[in-house]
Amino acid sequence: MNNLLVAQSGGPTAAINATLVGVLQGVRASGKVDKVFGAKNGIDGVLKEEFIDLNELVQDTEALDTLLYTPSSALGSCRHKMGDWRTNEMEYKKAVEVLLKNEIKYFIYIGGNDSMDTVDKLSEYCSLNHYDIIVMGAPKTVDNDLNLTDHSPGFGSAAKYIATTVAELERDISVYDVPAVTIVEIMGRNAGWLTAAAALARVNGGAGADLIYLCEKDFDNNRFIQDVREQLAKKPGILIAVSEGVKDNNGVYVSDQVSTGAVDNFGHKYIAGAARALEQMIRNEIGCKVRSVELNLMQRAAAHIASETDIIESSMLGQKALRCALDGETGRMAAIRRISDKPYRVEFISVPVNEVANHEKVVPMEWITASGNDVTSELMDYMLPLIQGETNIKYENGIPKQIKLY
Amino acid sequence: MNNLLVAQSGGPTAAINATLVGVLQGVRASGKVDKVFGAKNGIDGVLKEEFIDLNELVQDTEALDTLLYTPSSALGSCRHKMGDWRTNEMEYKKAVEVLLKNEIKYFIYIGGNDSMDTVDKLSEYCSLNHYDIIVMGAPKTVDNDLNLTDHSPGFGSAAKYIATTVAELERDISVYDVPAVTIVEIMGRNAGWLTAAAALARVNGGAGADLIYLCEKDFDNNRFIQDVREQLAKKPGILIAVSEGVKDNNGVYVSDQVSTGAVDNFGHKYIAGAARALEQMIRNEIGCKVRSVELNLMQRAAAHIASETDIIESSMLGQKALRCALDGETGRMAAIRRISDKPYRVEFISVPVNEVANHEKVVPMEWITASGNDVTSELMDYMLPLIQGETNIKYENGIPKQIKLY
Repeated sequence: MNNLLVAQSGGPTAAINATLVGVLQGVRASGKVDKVFGAKNGIDGVLKEEFIDLNELVQDTEALDTLLYTPSSALGSCRHKMGDWRTNEMEYKKAVEVLLKNEIKYFIYIGGNDSMDTVDKLSEYCSLNHYDIIVMGAPKTVDNDLNLTDHSPGFGSAAKYIATTVAELERDISVYDVPAVTIVEIMGRNAGWLTAAAALARVNGGAGADLIYLCEKDFDNNRFIQDVREQLAKKPGILIAVSEGVKDNNGVYVSDQVSTGAVDNFGHKYIAGAARALEQMIRNEIGCKVRSVELNLMQRAAAHIASETDIIESSMLGQKALRCALDGETGRMAAIRRISDKPYRVEFISVPVNEVANHEKVVPMEWITASGNDVTSELMDYMLPLIQGETNIKYENGIPKQIKLY
Repeated sequence: MNNLLVAQSGGPTAAINATLVGVLQGVRASGKVDKVFGAKNGIDGVLKEEFIDLNELVQDTEALDTLLYTPSSALGSCRHKMGDWRTNEMEYKKAVEVLLKNEIKYFIYIGGNDSMDTVDKLSEYCSLNHYDIIVMGAPKTVDNDLNLTDHSPGFGSAAKYIATTVAELERDISVYDVPAVTIVEIMGRNAGWLTAAAALARVNGGAGADLIYLCEKDFDNNRFIQDVREQLAKKPGILIAVSEGVKDNNGVYVSDQVSTGAVDNFGHKYIAGAARALEQMIRNEIGCKVRSVELNLMQRAAAHIASETDIIESSMLGQKALRCALDGETGRMAAIRRISDKPYRVEFISVPVNEVANHEKVVPMEWITASGNDVTSELMDYMLPLIQGETNIKYENGIPKQIKLY
């Protein structure tokens, strides 16, 4: 039997199920797969042999269409990173035993950095031990920090949510005639791609975020306060976008700098984000009205405003990963190569997964302005195509229709 | 000349511009208004004679269509509450002087509680002093706390955003197999209507929020911890919705209870919301993974997922306010009367504004379950019609098109 197993891992995105749909569409179109299963909670589900039967789903066009627009990982997720098989072979033996028992010839793992590490190690283990098991990766991450792919599925949808939300917040904060600062904290510990998307709020001429601080650039408190004062001199309502992971030139997170002294009634340290810390800083240094807003889980879960480009590409990557697997490729990841910005054209390729795993693609310094508080037009050109198009998401009783697989 | 002045006030919503559009559509259709102006920043713009010429806009169908879906107050806003004219007539004299100078016969003020107080006082002042100036109110508030109207424009759109977001968050928090609590803080200091909308995430069978705490009901910390423990015994990922204004039986805000001891490096008190306070409480008492999410400004600004029902009704209320004004009504507010839930039918009426101003319509206690951690089916029936329908919002370059009036 040539069975296929697919699993999802890492933090959820609005597009990760589109990649699953792509794999399943590929299964249906190819006719080369006997049975298809999903492992529940990523590699954990492989090790525990917790499988979800997807054979009916493959034939159900309507259900696949709903899955395409359902956010988060329909097969569940995990944070499990497999160890080195050279030092501890146990897990690998167990995984292979489960795969062989279920006559799995193809295993496709959809995920980010850590998941690609699993693809790398497991494919290598299978190859070296001559198991007829193919392991392919399909990328996923809102953070857009995966190597060797022009961009990552999930990023475009999160960027569209952020751009739209910042444009809406800009309208909201502009109505009063009194000095006020609003700080929007955006996901990204080490890579500022999502924060950069706040600049896309300007594509139709609006101000969007007035100041944008990515975590790639050293954050200078004094310079920040000066930037804010300069903006306040121009207009009353100021909007600032900041990466959750901004740090000073010693690598200390801004959130840690300011909140060190804060403890609650139980003597526990108060956990504040970057925006909350900067809010306190402005309150102390400038004294104007100030508030912070975290886009939090919404930015990765907002399927209702997913980018059509992102959803289509995510599904194409699932199809590509399957095609590569059927062609006998193993230890590789489906990826996107950009051919041109204007017009936007891409092709789908496969890349060696060991050059993806454990690397982090951050925003190039030359795409951040010299002032350190904005992005360049090159970065805008890079991001703009990724948020284009609206999906055909279906509503039922006033909210988007979703599907649950378990 | 029979000129008309329109202004907006109070906190922004996704539907307040739809009411402005309704007024302007009414102006165009009636043929009884000579010139139409907007006052910038509410009553402040009247006192300062800062007017925006809207005569071209009235004829511009495309611009009106964009304005219909642009969030926040396109004419700006203010928090100015007029004093009592019996004790201080100055402001009233100034307002009337500006209105008469510009030959304003009709003044329509779109806003919440405080704005209706202005409508009440100013209309009374004009009537008693025999000025030929009509002052009409049109309601607006995401909080849904206005008296004498079945519901308030802006609420339905915010409720649709909340229901959709909670449904998306439920998918997001359900992927891992480890105990974790996510607390979503929703707007509402005294009225829990918006928090109740978290229950609408269940309309298609999803779990939505597992526990819902409205600010109308006394909040009991011990009972809360017990509720959370019970939910965690059933499944690993728990979602909780809570009003920002939950208080204990002494009227002390939950946010104040827990954060009293927390000060930052400068010795300033740490400002935490209810969710953040409950997050700390769960961390201390239960010790599982816990995080908090604030829907913050997004819930009132998210025009991209506005309720079509809300937008249509908001515009109809603007038209109704204008029609009443042209018919000579003054000191009244356009309002919605519900005829039936199923099928949903309403009519547009006018009500005496002095019975609206300075009242607050909270969620009836009988619409909260006895357990205090959920809403009843009656409340669901009340809310469900208000989030129905999706708008024809236009996108440009990947984000919703907006219009600025100044």
